[in-house]
Amino acid sequence: MSTVEEAINALRSGKFVLLHDSDIRENEIDMVIAAEFVRPEHIATMRSVAGGLICLGLEYEIANKLGLMYMYEILRDHKSLYKLASNKAPYGDKPSFSLWINHNDTFTGITDMDRSLTISKMAYVCKRIDLDGKEYFFDNFRAPGHVPLLIAAKGLLHSRKGHTELCTYLAKLSGLTSCVVICEMLDSISYKALSFEKAREYADINNIPLIEGSQLHDHLAISQKQ
Amino acid sequence: MSTVEEAINALRSGKFVLLHDSDIRENEIDMVIAAEFVRPEHIATMRSVAGGLICLGLEYEIANKLGLMYMYEILRDHKSLYKLASNKAPYGDKPSFSLWINHNDTFTGITDMDRSLTISKMAYVCKRIDLDGKEYFFDNFRAPGHVPLLIAAKGLLHSRKGHTELCTYLAKLSGLTSCVVICEMLDSISYKALSFEKAREYADINNIPLIEGSQLHDHLAISQKQ
Repeated sequence: MSTVEEAINALRSGKFVLLHDSDIRENEIDMVIAAEFVRPEHIATMRSVAGGLICLGLEYEIANKLGLMYMYEILRDHKSLYKLASNKAPYGDKPSFSLWINHNDTFTGITDMDRSLTISKMAYVCKRIDLDGKEYFFDNFRAPGHVPLLIAAKGLLHSRKGHTELCTYLAKLSGLTSCVVICEMLDSISYKALSFEKAREYADINNIPLIEGSQLHDHLAISQKQ
Repeated sequence: MSTVEEAINALRSGKFVLLHDSDIRENEIDMVIAAEFVRPEHIATMRSVAGGLICLGLEYEIANKLGLMYMYEILRDHKSLYKLASNKAPYGDKPSFSLWINHNDTFTGITDMDRSLTISKMAYVCKRIDLDGKEYFFDNFRAPGHVPLLIAAKGLLHSRKGHTELCTYLAKLSGLTSCVVICEMLDSISYKALSFEKAREYADINNIPLIEGSQLHDHLAISQKQ
């Protein structure tokens, strides 16, 4: 297993980190990269190697300042569609999904260049959240689009232990904007989530740190004692 | 170029078809397969080979009977998020996106097995739309999820000329339920949409029909004259 410090160094250098949540939750490994460093080749790598949805996780406080809401909240208020929003996932959590967005300078919104643009401009919004970030967001993005926003739970790891919270916490530890891209690693043989062993093999070959959610929980516990 | 008849035969046999919309619209080629035939290996192929979003296109009449709405309509009514929904795509169309769904029997919702289950159960809903389809839908699906629903424009090709309308029309021509999976073909070299030449090469090697949107428009025009 890699150390939390190795993961922090990779994230700060604009490199990928692999992050396993827990055997007793989704039991899934996500590719993680800080949004501010994303370029088209990272999108191509995530869709080719990982294969899940390329999502953008935001810290709760940033989403709140933007006036964003969870999608289940938007649907819960809807006169006919509310019933679909009442179910929890089998692992017990409410989904982190908010809106799906495109930057206005994208064309179809789906190409590697387009998704990279949407993601890097959203990192810009988050960096400037206490300046003109909100104004820029409403002037320059449209929804629905091709990049799903995920909102980390208020209180982060104290409230929810999903990839959204884990990667947002890791970004904070790294001193980066809490705006992080994650993509689930899937397996074309079993048609299930990629196993820990296969992810370990990919991490070793490509010199990418692989960490467990529990390491971040331990890190949080130790930092709170100090 | 393949014929419309070859595309119909492939779709009816549960095989892929490649569909180019038009040089003057998205100029994009989508992999297309009828939802009722989708198995996990098709999801794995679409995410590995095509790389875009794996979307499920529905005929307007079916979506209407389910009480589904376009996402831009849902957001347009929202007190603070409406501004994001007011923009059209650069090629002039309103986006077809409706909700993102998971079947309740999925676990994370993103694996090949899970997305295949969501899609085949949605084909079941569409097949039984005039029986108990709506009831089954609201009892067995949740939103937000990992499979985006697209609603074809009312009046199909008379109203909008996107992949959603083209593939739904093709399903109707084929005598299949108008519930079709589409996924944009992307290029990891240019980071743009896959070129027509590269899609042609993939189609030839894999014996998959490749047709142009204009062939379906011509087919419609001829059928209306008869």
